[in-house]
Amino acid sequence: MSGHMTPEEFRRHGYAAIDWIADYWAALDELPVRSQSAPGDVRSALPAHAPEAGEPFEHLLADLDEIVVPGLTHWQHPRYFAYFPANSSPAAILGDLLSSGIGAQGMIWATSPAVTELEQVVLDWFAEALGLPAHFRSDGSGGGVIQDTASTATFTALLAALHRASQGDVREHGVRGEEWTVYGSSQAHSSLVKAAMMAGLGAEAVRVVDVDPRSQAMDPEDLRRRLAEDVAAGRRPAMVHVAAGTTSTGACDDVAAAAHVAEEWDVWVHVDAAWAGVAAVCPEHRGLLAGIDRAHSFVTNPHKWLLTTFDCSTFWVSDRRALTGALSILPEYLRNAATESGDVVDYRDWHPQLGRRFRALKLWAVLRTYGLEGLREHVRSGVALAEHVESLVRSDPRFELVTDRVLSLVVLRVRAGDEATLTAMERVNAGGVAYFSHTTVEGRAAIRFAVGSWRTTRQDVDRAWEALQSAVEAQTDA
Amino acid sequence: MSGHMTPEEFRRHGYAAIDWIADYWAALDELPVRSQSAPGDVRSALPAHAPEAGEPFEHLLADLDEIVVPGLTHWQHPRYFAYFPANSSPAAILGDLLSSGIGAQGMIWATSPAVTELEQVVLDWFAEALGLPAHFRSDGSGGGVIQDTASTATFTALLAALHRASQGDVREHGVRGEEWTVYGSSQAHSSLVKAAMMAGLGAEAVRVVDVDPRSQAMDPEDLRRRLAEDVAAGRRPAMVHVAAGTTSTGACDDVAAAAHVAEEWDVWVHVDAAWAGVAAVCPEHRGLLAGIDRAHSFVTNPHKWLLTTFDCSTFWVSDRRALTGALSILPEYLRNAATESGDVVDYRDWHPQLGRRFRALKLWAVLRTYGLEGLREHVRSGVALAEHVESLVRSDPRFELVTDRVLSLVVLRVRAGDEATLTAMERVNAGGVAYFSHTTVEGRAAIRFAVGSWRTTRQDVDRAWEALQSAVEAQTDA
Repeated sequence: MSGHMTPEEFRRHGYAAIDWIADYWAALDELPVRSQSAPGDVRSALPAHAPEAGEPFEHLLADLDEIVVPGLTHWQHPRYFAYFPANSSPAAILGDLLSSGIGAQGMIWATSPAVTELEQVVLDWFAEALGLPAHFRSDGSGGGVIQDTASTATFTALLAALHRASQGDVREHGVRGEEWTVYGSSQAHSSLVKAAMMAGLGAEAVRVVDVDPRSQAMDPEDLRRRLAEDVAAGRRPAMVHVAAGTTSTGACDDVAAAAHVAEEWDVWVHVDAAWAGVAAVCPEHRGLLAGIDRAHSFVTNPHKWLLTTFDCSTFWVSDRRALTGALSILPEYLRNAATESGDVVDYRDWHPQLGRRFRALKLWAVLRTYGLEGLREHVRSGVALAEHVESLVRSDPRFELVTDRVLSLVVLRVRAGDEATLTAMERVNAGGVAYFSHTTVEGRAAIRFAVGSWRTTRQDVDRAWEALQSAVEAQTDA
Repeated sequence: MSGHMTPEEFRRHGYAAIDWIADYWAALDELPVRSQSAPGDVRSALPAHAPEAGEPFEHLLADLDEIVVPGLTHWQHPRYFAYFPANSSPAAILGDLLSSGIGAQGMIWATSPAVTELEQVVLDWFAEALGLPAHFRSDGSGGGVIQDTASTATFTALLAALHRASQGDVREHGVRGEEWTVYGSSQAHSSLVKAAMMAGLGAEAVRVVDVDPRSQAMDPEDLRRRLAEDVAAGRRPAMVHVAAGTTSTGACDDVAAAAHVAEEWDVWVHVDAAWAGVAAVCPEHRGLLAGIDRAHSFVTNPHKWLLTTFDCSTFWVSDRRALTGALSILPEYLRNAATESGDVVDYRDWHPQLGRRFRALKLWAVLRTYGLEGLREHVRSGVALAEHVESLVRSDPRFELVTDRVLSLVVLRVRAGDEATLTAMERVNAGGVAYFSHTTVEGRAAIRFAVGSWRTTRQDVDRAWEALQSAVEAQTDA
């Protein structure tokens, strides 16, 4: 049939795709990190209609080079320091490729037992590697599951929290009966507000808890005050969102202190450690999760720092009944003996989606190919490079640190002010040698220098730093 | 660093992964379709802890063969006829592999322009290929986006519907102010109830509309009656879910008739054609979507029948403002000139997640490698094979059709009754030569014979049919 590749063609084009990736990676160093593309450039280079007749696969690869690559911001570039790294390692890519070839659906255990059981085992492995409490394991009261993103995990946590707090009422009757509230610091990820909006609580249900101006971490006393105020007013607190490593500056809320407050009103504690959590593979970084044994749910993203191709957001709950209680649905065509026996887990009830990919394969590939030693080495190298960035900032009086370095994230500014800071950053980004993103801390502009790509060397950091210095010099000269 | 592959190692292991897939596919014919694994088999064959030291990638491939493959139900098997096919074609797999290698995030236009623009173009191509109205295109009032699953698309549609009906009130104040209701037939996908639960409306908000007993399609008069009743009681209808091809029997609600009713109360019409919608690439099958020009949103899954590796659920809206109004969030670190110019689309505001993979690449690969001709040929071959199944059922007096064949889905039963039907199916499934799933139609058990894999030949259908016949004979003999 037209379009279907023969096994020989698949091997040939498959090798070519592997080669394309290897060549793309080899060329990255020479490419501008941030795309130089203007709105519409890519679109206008593409045909207006799908082709009637099939084309050779080579045409796709050619257009990838000519049309797509110039429109990419290269997240795998060694001098990509914006947002957070999205490491797509060779092992993960090949694990995910194998998953595509297998093409199995893991919505319930019965639709492909290995998809579910490998995920349970790998999440148990990873929970242990991070030092998570035993009740998060699948042989405890809880269990882990791979979600697509931390946003979905936070939303799922909120649904489980509402289920628990309402004793099942919400899944049947909705959220109308109570004035539910959720809590997170002013630095909490935007997905908290989005979760409240999606769950039918509305953005106004989110209580914005104050942070300490220097650390940017949640003030537990303000959390207590807001909880007490809402409870006194007859409102129903559903969830406290604790950020272990915020997006803006990497600030780490005190999990134990927040949990201590939340426990007074028996409120669900969700720990969002999307970026920073994976650092707990190193014992010396477990302090950032101190108190995690008192949390009801926890999420961290191997698809950021920990080398696992997007999407792979690992999420654990301490009591899986709240999760499945909130989300279970059993249509006739999915009924089966294994589910009814209670001997298996059906991951369909652990997230919003029904269909699910065999994502455990790529995480398995990362954990096995690197081993825990290799993962620790990777995290430590990112931290060491960020320490180097920190020392560079300290050694140049034109710059200053905005907050203390957290793991592999350094937040800095040009002392001359906001305009100087943003102009210097934009000059570097536009030049293409490196790419940073900005944030605002206590009302002032700052540059985020996020290390952590497995390709980044000390030379890359130095080159990016020199570009920033030159950009500031250019301003002074002007 | 330990674990990182050199470029040469990546090429070597990459070729090996491609070869593994080609070999796995070549071996499928000999493997039992449904896994013979019992709960815990896979888990108990795996180590209890992650390895400390990294292992060679070859170990992973060996364990894949020894531990994982026996625990798989082979969705890519030529005699897989359960649920719906989840076609993972060579072109899509390689497109997705390239996406992993690029490893870009497309949460907003600015984070990698080509990720957004290629998706817009490919969704416009595909909208045209399906004969969708112009207002679903990105240069009209609407636009398309790739969601992970139809469940997420339906949930997203509900959020947009609530935003529109509440004129923005829900995103701020939640759903407390009104008694919102949603409508779908008794055959609507379970994701509708799940969406109502997740959106804070509760399962009780879903009105179960009657179906015609023979066609299993929604009764528009019952829809009208229920809408009128709710409105009279002061409730607020938010969305009508129209199934164009149900999961159970492939029943197609009359989109135009449902829209006609919904328009009386200005209610959002969401058309869920997850499985069947892709058949509209063939002009002769567009009748199933007649009236789609009156829908507010539409979803179909190329990751089922249309050869695109999971996940790829294509979703369109007629007015993108309802979608972005419901979901937009703009934290400081994502602010950028392109977004503020209004010249670009930021897909982050089109679905629950923030992070997003470059999924357009795999759909682009499918559309280009097959061409529209190849896709039509693929759909037609599935339909022709199902017609063959239909004729086999008609020719054997021990069997009967339960509903009329819809496209590539045939629903049948053993005339002797429910027990005979389910026992025969289970015998075939346990034997491994083919795999079917069951359903219940008007209270009676039925077997779903879902064709559509690109590997399925007429011989595969005949062999599966003979296995079913033998299973029935074995019962008669017993």
